[in-house]
Amino acid sequence: MLEKNIDSIVSANAKDLAKAANNPMLDRLILNEERIIAIADATRKIIDLPDILGNIDKMWQRPNGLKIGQQRVPLGLVGIIYEARPNVTVDAAVLCIKSGNACLLRGGSDAIYSNLELVRLMRLALKSVGLPAEAIEIISDPSRESATQMMKLNQYLDVLIPRGGAGLIKSVVQNATVPVIETGSGNCHIYIDEYADLEMGLDILFNAKTQRPSVCNACESLVVHSKVANEFLTQLAEQNTGIELRGDERTQAIIPCTPATDEDFYEEYNDLILSIKIVDGLDEAIDHINEHSTKHSESIVTKDYKNSQKFLQRINSAVVYINASTRFTDGYEFGFGAEIGISTQKLHARGPMGIEALTTTKYIVYGNGQIRK
Amino acid sequence: MLEKNIDSIVSANAKDLAKAANNPMLDRLILNEERIIAIADATRKIIDLPDILGNIDKMWQRPNGLKIGQQRVPLGLVGIIYEARPNVTVDAAVLCIKSGNACLLRGGSDAIYSNLELVRLMRLALKSVGLPAEAIEIISDPSRESATQMMKLNQYLDVLIPRGGAGLIKSVVQNATVPVIETGSGNCHIYIDEYADLEMGLDILFNAKTQRPSVCNACESLVVHSKVANEFLTQLAEQNTGIELRGDERTQAIIPCTPATDEDFYEEYNDLILSIKIVDGLDEAIDHINEHSTKHSESIVTKDYKNSQKFLQRINSAVVYINASTRFTDGYEFGFGAEIGISTQKLHARGPMGIEALTTTKYIVYGNGQIRK
Repeated sequence: MLEKNIDSIVSANAKDLAKAANNPMLDRLILNEERIIAIADATRKIIDLPDILGNIDKMWQRPNGLKIGQQRVPLGLVGIIYEARPNVTVDAAVLCIKSGNACLLRGGSDAIYSNLELVRLMRLALKSVGLPAEAIEIISDPSRESATQMMKLNQYLDVLIPRGGAGLIKSVVQNATVPVIETGSGNCHIYIDEYADLEMGLDILFNAKTQRPSVCNACESLVVHSKVANEFLTQLAEQNTGIELRGDERTQAIIPCTPATDEDFYEEYNDLILSIKIVDGLDEAIDHINEHSTKHSESIVTKDYKNSQKFLQRINSAVVYINASTRFTDGYEFGFGAEIGISTQKLHARGPMGIEALTTTKYIVYGNGQIRK
Repeated sequence: MLEKNIDSIVSANAKDLAKAANNPMLDRLILNEERIIAIADATRKIIDLPDILGNIDKMWQRPNGLKIGQQRVPLGLVGIIYEARPNVTVDAAVLCIKSGNACLLRGGSDAIYSNLELVRLMRLALKSVGLPAEAIEIISDPSRESATQMMKLNQYLDVLIPRGGAGLIKSVVQNATVPVIETGSGNCHIYIDEYADLEMGLDILFNAKTQRPSVCNACESLVVHSKVANEFLTQLAEQNTGIELRGDERTQAIIPCTPATDEDFYEEYNDLILSIKIVDGLDEAIDHINEHSTKHSESIVTKDYKNSQKFLQRINSAVVYINASTRFTDGYEFGFGAEIGISTQKLHARGPMGIEALTTTKYIVYGNGQIRK
């Protein structure tokens, strides 16, 4: 349906682009033939994922003969509040439909014409296969008031998922009375242990920092053991990677770098900037990370078995790695085949969320006349 | 520790009872030797439950060799806001400790002296086995302001669980910015299908309505198919059960009863009152129940296979029964060995919540130098 209507999408998109001539985020708004085909391809991949609805995750029998099963069912009505990128409109709606949910979308005003046209086409597609068009609804008034009202629709919405920058997410968490799944910002750490393979450490650090610096699973902060700091940091500085290094005092004594402030260690740069902290042991590294991280993804580079296990055990984040890049925190990389976001909260879903995070369970109980004594 | 200090608990409790001389809920406040021993026994049962912390629920390997496991870990700091009964102080704290969490308790002002003494003793017990006493904290000022402040402690609290009446729960849902698990009120339905075994139907209805009318899994509303309404309702009326029957117009034409208002069908009586609705088919029954229920527990009584499956499939509640009493919606009856409450929301936990509902997971990833391409 999308590929057959590229012209109508592009012309709706043109109206958004005309409004946004001076918007620095302009590129994110653009829909052209290539991007529309990519969106349609992504949709087909989601359609091809296995269906999990109706599955009985487990079932057991009680001494009184009751058989109790836990069955996977849709959440119901999923609300999604998001910002400029119009591809999120299709992605979010398709994930909701695949998981058996209806959705209420509220995109940003920048992309309103594109979003309305995409929703119109998706509703036609639903109808064409005998599904109710009403399963995808979009709020046509992208004002601040409409967002605030949406956050209080407890009677209708089963969950609200914000997708966008830190400001949007904070506003939803603060104002919503509907249950929220917080998708998160990532101040991700790489810790170079005293027993690290330093070459592997450099590879992992470069990958996590530079492969795509603007995303939430990119590394923002390097923690390095004092015993290997000299060698590791010197190699890092020699490589001229274009990364701005912001080091603590001990780092400044080893390599040329910008002095790091306290705030630097809390910062998610989403840019080619790296904060650096030198520690004297694993415990100090773990404490530093748990204090400053956003509880997204952290990785230790080490050859030591005991240290690797302690790091896994004690780091309080959604995903904890041994000897791998934090960039793998992603629904596709985890093998889920899709991703609705990465949860940094602990309730319901934590880490990359695939289709299953958009479902819930209900208990089904088979009896033959049991009453409670 | 509790059984060794019965005197100090009883004397703290006496101070609460002195304040509450005219309180109609007085019985719920009382702590005597028998009740304290019962609390200690319940605590030992929770201690004996299997430990689930650290379990890897699943683990898989990706084509790039990454091994990804999902490990069960504590939530962190669990907040619990509850009302008068001081036994909840012990029960909630012990469940939190068993699941590896710290807890912040906020009980009602009625039981403040009892609660403070129980917490003092539990903290001594923690210390005596080498655990930090700070893992159990109680707010000593049981004012409305302290509750409101607690609901906004996003920086510290991982989850907030209200335990108490509908007013308390509503206030928490409306005001909390911390993630909440809503434990619920129950307007539970029994549906007597046209193919029901009527004798089984009467047994189940009586059990669900009268075995303990004050609790959330008690039946509040009977829905009966018109083809069997005459026979079933006549038998019900003849039994003189002491239940006040509130029927719709068609019911009034069959048996003597109070006329039911529209509000009756939304009501959780928690008393020996039953609303009755006659329907002409299963679809009408399902629609009526989904419209009026609090999404807690509903049961169909039928001998028909197809109707039983349709009811399971289409009823939108935490627990759906075939041929059994709704009174089984309970962590102990489900075999969980404990219960922190019954969730009527869909996120994180739905239905009876045992120890597992007080935990979350984190992903642990074993690599050997993987970087993202």
